[in-house]
This record gives sequence, C-alpha cells and structure tokens, in this order.
Amino acid sequence: MLQHIIKTQNFTREFLFGDGKFEGIFRSALSMRDIAKKGSCDILKGKIVATWFAEESTRTRLSFESAALKLGAGVVSSTNARQFSSASKGETLEDTVRVLQHYADCIVMRYHEEGGAARAAHISKVPIINGGDGSGQHPTQSLLDLFTIYDELGAIDGLHVALVGDLKHGRTIHSLAYLLGKFDNVCLSLVSPNNLQMPKDILNYLNKHNVNWEVYDKLEDIIVNIDVLYQTRVQKERFMSLEEYEQSKGTLSITRDLANSMKIDSIILHPLPRVDEIRYSVDNNHRAKYFTQAENGLYVRMALLKMLLG
Amino acid sequence: MLQHIIKTQNFTREFLFGDGKFEGIFRSALSMRDIAKKGSCDILKGKIVATWFAEESTRTRLSFESAALKLGAGVVSSTNARQFSSASKGETLEDTVRVLQHYADCIVMRYHEEGGAARAAHISKVPIINGGDGSGQHPTQSLLDLFTIYDELGAIDGLHVALVGDLKHGRTIHSLAYLLGKFDNVCLSLVSPNNLQMPKDILNYLNKHNVNWEVYDKLEDIIVNIDVLYQTRVQKERFMSLEEYEQSKGTLSITRDLANSMKIDSIILHPLPRVDEIRYSVDNNHRAKYFTQAENGLYVRMALLKMLLG
Amino acid sequence: MLQHIIKTQNFTREFLFGDGKFEGIFRSALSMRDIAKKGSCDILKGKIVATWFAEESTRTRLSFESAALKLGAGVVSSTNARQFSSASKGETLEDTVRVLQHYADCIVMRYHEEGGAARAAHISKVPIINGGDGSGQHPTQSLLDLFTIYDELGAIDGLHVALVGDLKHGRTIHSLAYLLGKFDNVCLSLVSPNNLQMPKDILNYLNKHNVNWEVYDKLEDIIVNIDVLYQTRVQKERFMSLEEYEQSKGTLSITRDLANSMKIDSIILHPLPRVDEIRYSVDNNHRAKYFTQAENGLYVRMALLKMLLG
Repeated sequence: MLQHIIKTQNFTREFLFGDGKFEGIFRSALSMRDIAKKGSCDILKGKIVATWFAEESTRTRLSFESAALKLGAGVVSSTNARQFSSASKGETLEDTVRVLQHYADCIVMRYHEEGGAARAAHISKVPIINGGDGSGQHPTQSLLDLFTIYDELGAIDGLHVALVGDLKHGRTIHSLAYLLGKFDNVCLSLVSPNNLQMPKDILNYLNKHNVNWEVYDKLEDIIVNIDVLYQTRVQKERFMSLEEYEQSKGTLSITRDLANSMKIDSIILHPLPRVDEIRYSVDNNHRAKYFTQAENGLYVRMALLKMLLG
Repeated sequence: MLQHIIKTQNFTREFLFGDGKFEGIFRSALSMRDIAKKGSCDILKGKIVATWFAEESTRTRLSFESAALKLGAGVVSSTNARQFSSASKGETLEDTVRVLQHYADCIVMRYHEEGGAARAAHISKVPIINGGDGSGQHPTQSLLDLFTIYDELGAIDGLHVALVGDLKHGRTIHSLAYLLGKFDNVCLSLVSPNNLQMPKDILNYLNKHNVNWEVYDKLEDIIVNIDVLYQTRVQKERFMSLEEYEQSKGTLSITRDLANSMKIDSIILHPLPRVDEIRYSVDNNHRAKYFTQAENGLYVRMALLKMLLG
Repeated sequence: MLQHIIKTQNFTREFLFGDGKFEGIFRSALSMRDIAKKGSCDILKGKIVATWFAEESTRTRLSFESAALKLGAGVVSSTNARQFSSASKGETLEDTVRVLQHYADCIVMRYHEEGGAARAAHISKVPIINGGDGSGQHPTQSLLDLFTIYDELGAIDGLHVALVGDLKHGRTIHSLAYLLGKFDNVCLSLVSPNNLQMPKDILNYLNKHNVNWEVYDKLEDIIVNIDVLYQTRVQKERFMSLEEYEQSKGTLSITRDLANSMKIDSIILHPLPRVDEIRYSVDNNHRAKYFTQAENGLYVRMALLKMLLG
C-alpha cells in the first residue's frame, strides 16, 4: 500500500479503512489488539526492525520495539544517535541510512530536523517510518490518535475537534490536522496562545479541503461544544516571559470542572508526556482517553509493521 | 505469590523456601541454573520485559535482560531514562508507568529516589520489580545475596554476618538487613565509619526481630569470628576530608592477610562494583564468592520472572 | 579455530580460506549472505551475545547485533559504557568481564584504550571479540575489508593497495596492514600527511613479511596504478593549524575526476563514516564499494559468531 510512512497527507481513506485488496490499518489494528492481549505471533519471524532515534523517546521507540517483538521480529536500536553515533562524527543522514538498510528490514527514525524522514526514504531500499522529524510531522502518532477517535466514537466525519496548545511547533498537531482534512464536515477549533498559532500553510491546506476552522485563545470558549479535545504540551521556553506562560496555563489547562462541562460522550486526548496542561484530577473522568491512546499506539504500530514487512 | 517485588520485608520464608503450593525462589533458582547452563527455554515466549532505568546499571539491567531472554521473553529497554526519556520533559513516574504497562508484561525499574518502585506498583497493572530506588532498597540483590549464602553454606539461621562499608546509604545493605531479620539466631556485626552507620529505623527493626547486632569500626575486630563478610563500596564523596576517607580505607578494606585470617568455611560477598575495598589479591582466595554471587543474580532473576510471568 | 578475536596477526590463511576441517571465514560469510538475504536461521538459538561498548558505534555494534539476531541468538547491550556503566564508578575492565561472562555466551567489546580486548580475553571464559580498542586494532573491520576485496577482485596476492589518511592513529588501517602482510607480493602505497604516517613497528612488520611499501603524500601520485584505494577519515584535531588540515584535504580527498582516473577494475573502500574525504559525486562510480563493504560486515560477523558459538 505504502512503501514508507513519512507524512499524513499520504494516508488515503483506503489506507485507513481498507478496500477490496487491503484490509486497512484500522481493522488490522483491531486484529493486532487481539494478538497482543493474548501474547504474540510469528508473522515477522526472521525480520529485523531498527529504531534509530536522533533524540530519545519513551513512547514511540518502546511501542515500536514492543510491536516488532510481538510480531516475532528482532530489534536493533540506536538512541540519542545525534549525540553518540557516527552522526556526531559528521556522517550525513543519507550515509547512515545507506548502511543501516543492510542491517534491518525497516528503519523507524526520529530526526531533529524537519524533512529527515523524507530524505531517508528518498534513498532507502527498506521502508522508513517517520517517528518524528523536528517541527515536521509524526504520522504514526496521528494514526493512533485517529484510531482512538474512531474506536471510541465510531466515526470521524462530522466531528468537532479542538486542537489545543502549541499549534506552531507541535508536530503531532500538524500531522493530525492534515489527516483530519481527509474527512467530511470536520470542524476544527484552534486554541493556542497568540504567539503559537497554527502555521499558514496548514490553514491553507484546511481551507482547500473544506475543513471549517476557527481560532480561539481560551478553552472555555469552546469546551461545551466539542467531541474531541486534543490537548498538547506548551513548553515554557516558547514564551517571552514567565508571566505570559502562566497566563497561558490558566486559559489552556484542562481542570476537573472544565472536563466535566464537556459533552457526555466527548473524549480528551493527549500525545503525552503531559505536565500540568491536563490536571491529574481529570484522569478518572470517563472522557480521559490519553492512556488508552498510548495503548493503541502498540496496536497501530503492529499493524504498520505487518503491512510494511509482512 | 507476590505481585510486585518492592522490598525485602515482603519476602516470607515460604517465598524463599517454598511450601505445598509454591516451590520457592531458591529451589526455582537452582532449576534455572540448570536451564541457563544448557542454554535457554521458552516458558515466557511471547512475553515482554521492560527494563526502565533512571540511572544506568551493568549488572542488574543486563542480568535481568539475559534472564528474560533465557526464558524466551523479549526485552525493551530505556537506560539513563532520567536524563534522556520523557522523564526529562517533566513526566511523572506514574504517567510513565501508565504508558509502559501497555508495552510490557513486567517492568524492572531503577529509580533515583527512595519509594519510586512502590509508587509505580501502586498504580501498575503489570508486575513492578524494584531494581534499586535511591537509598531505599534493592530487593533482588538481597535475594541473590541470600541465595549465595544458602547455596554456599547450606543454612542461614545461626550465621554470624558482618555488614561492612557505607551502612547509611547502601541500599543493598538495607535490603539484606531486613531480610536477615526473618531468620533465627542471626548475629550481625555492623562495621562502618562513624558517619556512615546503619539508620535507626533498621536497628529498631532488627531489635524487634531478635537479631543480635553490634557496632564496630574496624574489620579486624570481628574478622576471625564471622561466617559471611558482606563488603560494600564507600564513596569518597561521603567523607568530609580525604584524610578521613583514607583512614576508612585502611580499617575497612579486605587485604589478603585479613581474608586468610577468616574461618576456613566463611565466605566474602560484595554486590559490586568494587574499587579497592577488596584487594585484587583476595580474588583467588577460596572464600571469595563475589563473582559467583553476580552469576547467581542471573538464576535468581530468572526465577523471579518465571514466578511473576510464568 | 580461534577462541577470541583480538588482532589480525592471529588470522592464518586457513582461518580465512579454510582447510580440511574448517570451512574458513570467507566461505562461511558467503553462506551467511544467502541466509541473511532470505531471512534468518536458528543455529544460535538459546545463545546470548553481549555488546559492551565503552564508546558508541553505529556500524560495528548494530551489525553485530543484527548478525546475532539473524542466527537466532539474543542480544544484551551496554553503550557508552565508559560514561554510564559501572566503569564510571571505578570498576576495572577485568571485573566487568568477570561479571558479564555469566550473562552472555560471547562479548563484543569496544574499549577506549589499546589493549582492552586482550586484557578481557586474558581472563574471560567466553569468547571476546575486539570491536575496536583505542588506537589499537579493529580486526573484524579488517576481515570485512579483506572479504570485500576478495569478493570483488577474486584474489589478494599480488594486489597494489593504497592506504590513505591518518595512518598513525587509524586502527582499521593498522589491522588491515597486519593482515595484508600474510599475503604474497602485496604492494602498499602509504599516503598520509607528514604528521600522520604509519607507525614504525608496523613498517618493520611489513618488511619482515616481504610487503613492498612506499610512502606518498598525494593521492594523484599513485592513483592510476592501484587496485584498491582504502580511504580513511582524517580528524581535524590531528592538525596543528586549520591551514594544514585544508591542505591535506586538497591532496588526500577522492574527487570524481580522481576516481575516474583509476584502473577500470579497481575498487574504493572506506570503513565509514566518511566526511568529505570521498566526495559524494564518487558514490555512483562503479568502483565505489564502501557501502557494499558495510553490508559485508553483517555476513562476516555472522560467520564469526557462528564459528565462536555454533
């Protein structure tokens, strides 16, 4: 179906939901959930997955490695590769890939600059999976985000989704926005501090794909209307002053009261890690699905590896 | 038997030696030794063990990973997690565990603060094994320590054990002291510099459990009487002056002559790494069992993983 | 055949090409290529390979780990061990090995000082493979270098080989020079900056083994005559001034024109990573074999692991 997983614009509805030939990533992820809950299988026995991370990651790397193991594949891993590996000796990303492709059947890669995964895919003979490239994209995160929405709410067309936090730099936000542009009658509320708004090229893309979007700077302006609240972390160092940061926290954090004011069948997502943009008191709310979302990462990544290597 | 391995106070004699239902960790470790010497087995095939270490470790992490592999399980690993993983972005330990529990069937965890493993166990759906928590405990180390004593000397009741070194901060010392409190007629000699004596709460515990203990500041005062010399490393930075440190080395280090003055069937243990608190000239003494002890770590950890996941 | 892989002086022609009893590493590597291209095998099932790297490595570590997995073995790994493991607490290399040997059936080791692997082999009960020891040797690199020459050119006797770059510190150069000394009528051109010439003891060895060698300081002096150009990276910090470094780059870098002036059936090798000592425009030249060489690393290391553990 796809040879590399680089950006969400490449994901068609057939890729997600299947067609005559291909079962689709979402149905495959459901099968993978059954397999993972029981134990593991051997469909990728003899295959090797490399995780090459210029910067460390807990969720993405470990869930990919666990996914590979649960399918019977082996794993080789390089973490903090920017600091420690031959990249630190001046080797180009391309040269690294030209070597790695002989040691693994698939390379899951996090790179510190936008475009890294695309550069790798351009020359690699084995599938490249983008595990995050700087402020670029994080397409497998968006797949698991969307799978969680689909699994929890049963549909994506027609949903009202709030994207909250640092919309300027957040690669999970960018990837998800592109992906939501594939669906019908999606309505987006973009909630962020003034200095961290969604990039213009993504807004243009949304317009071209008939996504309704509106900009807000306070969560409470839209909280009662939305089906999905997609919260992200805003890093302190993005603000000019501590005062601005504190103010942003006040208007963008999800408190227990805010969560309770949401529609009864709405859900709260977060790519994690969270700091205090979702209060711990929200965790027991039935709308809180961010840990289920992290769990789903395993199943979606198993489905991707099966598709690319099976 | 146990769901998590957090502190040695939880270990009953039944846990160690078995009862009608449970074979006991020590007998299981002996079976594991047979398996490991021959190769491996598949009793944990399809299971995944995560090793999540806030601070790196050679012995504990690698022996747990080797133990998992020898039982047929897969391993995912995060090392220096305090510095590199999402913990460095402000994620709480609890959030990390809420995610990791979906990617592994068991989490072996080293944390830099006392109580870390207990906090993890409090919320985790999968077994947590404490691989060391700050100045807290290191229960699997104590299990292998005690297994080594049992395997070498045939009994634990009635032994005279010297605990030597930094008794104040040494988590292996603390864990072992609690564990020895479960046995009858154990006599403890506590040998340390003045400023690094055993904490009061452990002394109270020993009193309550009828363990005889006495405090010494020189090894030679007790060397001829003991059955087990448990030596530990004293870090230079624990002392006010280099002079104090050098003096402590003089009175606490095991030299060849001191080792030779020990009872013929006594043994010398050390959790390792050692620097110069056991001289290299002692290594060939038949009483030196610290490398056998490290070897036993593999078998005891195999037994623990089998118990928790088998 | 060999118990440890420490230095290339130990490699006999029988070791490389086989005899009545032993098939030889090169023929074994060819079989391994077939296995690896199809998938994997189980001949080392139940075995564990430890990779213990004082300093990180991309190629050597990952290809050894991939090789182990492709033979069905498990892998435990410690990277940046000098900085993070118990070595940083003052543990000697010997003590580390005395422990590790119980957790693995073979230890692949990179050490930051010359002689590290030999020290390890001196006391280890399991095979030690030298994955690079400071400015010492890198014998498995030389095996894959020589295998590549043999596989591409069909013979080694009688070849004219240019060794280019930092001949003083380059451990891959040293290992290869010793190994080429085993062959007949080999002619070596030693091309380096003045301050980075081949050590005297290696020159003496070459003399003793009837290897013809000559010293040059410009690539173009020998480029049209050679069969193998073995290029290596020269680190900027080896020079007294930036001016000297730039001058060296001018006379030692392989450009497209220089590559085109080589004999039609000659080859260009490099242990990688490369910076600009081979221009990217050379990559498409049919003589460029440095990525094939990296690929061959997998097969040669599979052959070594099979020999030591099979």
